[in-house]
Amino acid sequence: MNGDARGLGEFELIDRFFSRSKSADNKRSDVILGVGDDAALLRLPLGTDLVAAVDTIVAGRHFPLDSDPRSIGHRALAVNLSDMAAMGATPAWATLALTLPSADANWLEGFSAGLMRLADTHGVALVGGDTTAGPLTVSIQILGFVARDMALRRSGALAGDILAVTGTLGDAGAGLALVTGRLAGRERAASDELIERFEYPTPRVAFGSSARGIASAAMDVSDGLVGDLTKLAAASGLSAHVEVGQLPMSRALLATVPVAQAREWALAAGDDYELLVAVPPRRFDELAAAARQLNLTFTAIGDLRPGSGVSWALDGRVFAAPVQGYDHFR
Amino acid sequence: MNGDARGLGEFELIDRFFSRSKSADNKRSDVILGVGDDAALLRLPLGTDLVAAVDTIVAGRHFPLDSDPRSIGHRALAVNLSDMAAMGATPAWATLALTLPSADANWLEGFSAGLMRLADTHGVALVGGDTTAGPLTVSIQILGFVARDMALRRSGALAGDILAVTGTLGDAGAGLALVTGRLAGRERAASDELIERFEYPTPRVAFGSSARGIASAAMDVSDGLVGDLTKLAAASGLSAHVEVGQLPMSRALLATVPVAQAREWALAAGDDYELLVAVPPRRFDELAAAARQLNLTFTAIGDLRPGSGVSWALDGRVFAAPVQGYDHFR
Repeated sequence: MNGDARGLGEFELIDRFFSRSKSADNKRSDVILGVGDDAALLRLPLGTDLVAAVDTIVAGRHFPLDSDPRSIGHRALAVNLSDMAAMGATPAWATLALTLPSADANWLEGFSAGLMRLADTHGVALVGGDTTAGPLTVSIQILGFVARDMALRRSGALAGDILAVTGTLGDAGAGLALVTGRLAGRERAASDELIERFEYPTPRVAFGSSARGIASAAMDVSDGLVGDLTKLAAASGLSAHVEVGQLPMSRALLATVPVAQAREWALAAGDDYELLVAVPPRRFDELAAAARQLNLTFTAIGDLRPGSGVSWALDGRVFAAPVQGYDHFR
Repeated sequence: MNGDARGLGEFELIDRFFSRSKSADNKRSDVILGVGDDAALLRLPLGTDLVAAVDTIVAGRHFPLDSDPRSIGHRALAVNLSDMAAMGATPAWATLALTLPSADANWLEGFSAGLMRLADTHGVALVGGDTTAGPLTVSIQILGFVARDMALRRSGALAGDILAVTGTLGDAGAGLALVTGRLAGRERAASDELIERFEYPTPRVAFGSSARGIASAAMDVSDGLVGDLTKLAAASGLSAHVEVGQLPMSRALLATVPVAQAREWALAAGDDYELLVAVPPRRFDELAAAARQLNLTFTAIGDLRPGSGVSWALDGRVFAAPVQGYDHFR
């Protein structure tokens, strides 16, 4: 693909960059009809429910305007796969609504490469698309399925459950600060790792599947632990308690900023796309073993109690959590 | 709902304007879990396939910047319902990705009223949403279902089929010209009717259902007959022939502009959201009767033949079709 595609037609554009009908890469036998008709026809496995979510990322808001298009494509799908992970669902199909200022072939090549690579990793087929001219906005709807009555919800937590998270928190916040020049790195390797965590987050789909039938509640940490945990506690009608000293933070993060700054990002920066899970104490080891099998850390950070709201403690004292989670209209 | 909602949180915004959990208006027993978790859980009827489509409308591109928000909400859903109609599918659920400059309560009230009213008309439940700050862009994914192997496709037309359309063509093109001041109306009633056709298009969902099992192919006329028919003919591997004199045009349109202009809009303006159907001659009357039952005109405009491309004739002569259909990147 060379040169400039200004003037490339919408139909041709979807066909050229996003349709994989010619390759066997992400063929799925359950795609009865894919891109090219008025709608896609998709077949769910027997005994499953459809799981549907939508997430939009906007240039200059969710990513810097000059981001690598490959990262934009990756992130647009990753944030949606993360929603599937949080439900314990199997992602299967996606549709793309892409608004972009001009049909630049180089940009589209990078964007579709980032998106399709992650799609292939998870066996997701792109079955519909819509491209319009306008300010850069990427909206993906992800579709998947889950065995009936087995989906993980935010509302299922029980008093006494352990609260735990996958991976580490705060890396993406540091990565964004590095990318935008608000933070100067100290070690090249650490900086690269943090930027990678922001630009190419890993949705925890396999872990979400493992947690099905074990965890009592789950959600993804997209807007920051402070905001997201507040939602999980409220949905479950419980109070959450967090030991801030237990928050899992990466070596790269701690090598780059003082611990107080690291903690602030771990609590409130968002964009890490780890899973926040409530699990009964007697089943914690099962989930921890499942995480180990996936080479993923899994860390208890607190518990759920009768009541409402979230309380934070550090070194035996009440800790004032920094700010509310990321909210697009505040 | 009064006053300005600048600063209204995303979660609250969805809950306040788009969640109907408190009313019974569009409760569906197949919505296992709606707005408020990481994803929605939806149950398809046995023996059906999922039908999924996405369409985006952008301010200043698909509608004037100063459009009534009620019309924007209506159109955003209508264009998607029209895709369901074109497949002969039953729309059931939708997700909304709304990007808007600021959370203005008056604007949102109008927008959600327009959207939810049409949703209620078709029994569609809004099961997920995502709001982000940015230039006004509305992307809706519609989800529905259709009995297996019964969906209407663009590719099913057969040589000898009659080509027919529902309703009238060209009205929305005139309506847009009136709204934007490019055209001065002659009769108030006619102008109002044409503007209504642009601002509040009626997706032909019931007719699409009726056409299932009778029509051999269908698609909606969203980008104009010239462009859309070219796609249907190509998908079916056939040539299409149209008698331009047969194109159904409304009295309002013909009372407003000369017939040559009316024809140009009927052929190429788009936005009418009528259905274009291929039907075997022996079954044409059945479909016409189904349309009559819905108070909808249904007009034969040509036929399908072996070959490729589209030919146009008027008064026994070859007719030069005006321009290619609307394409967002041309």
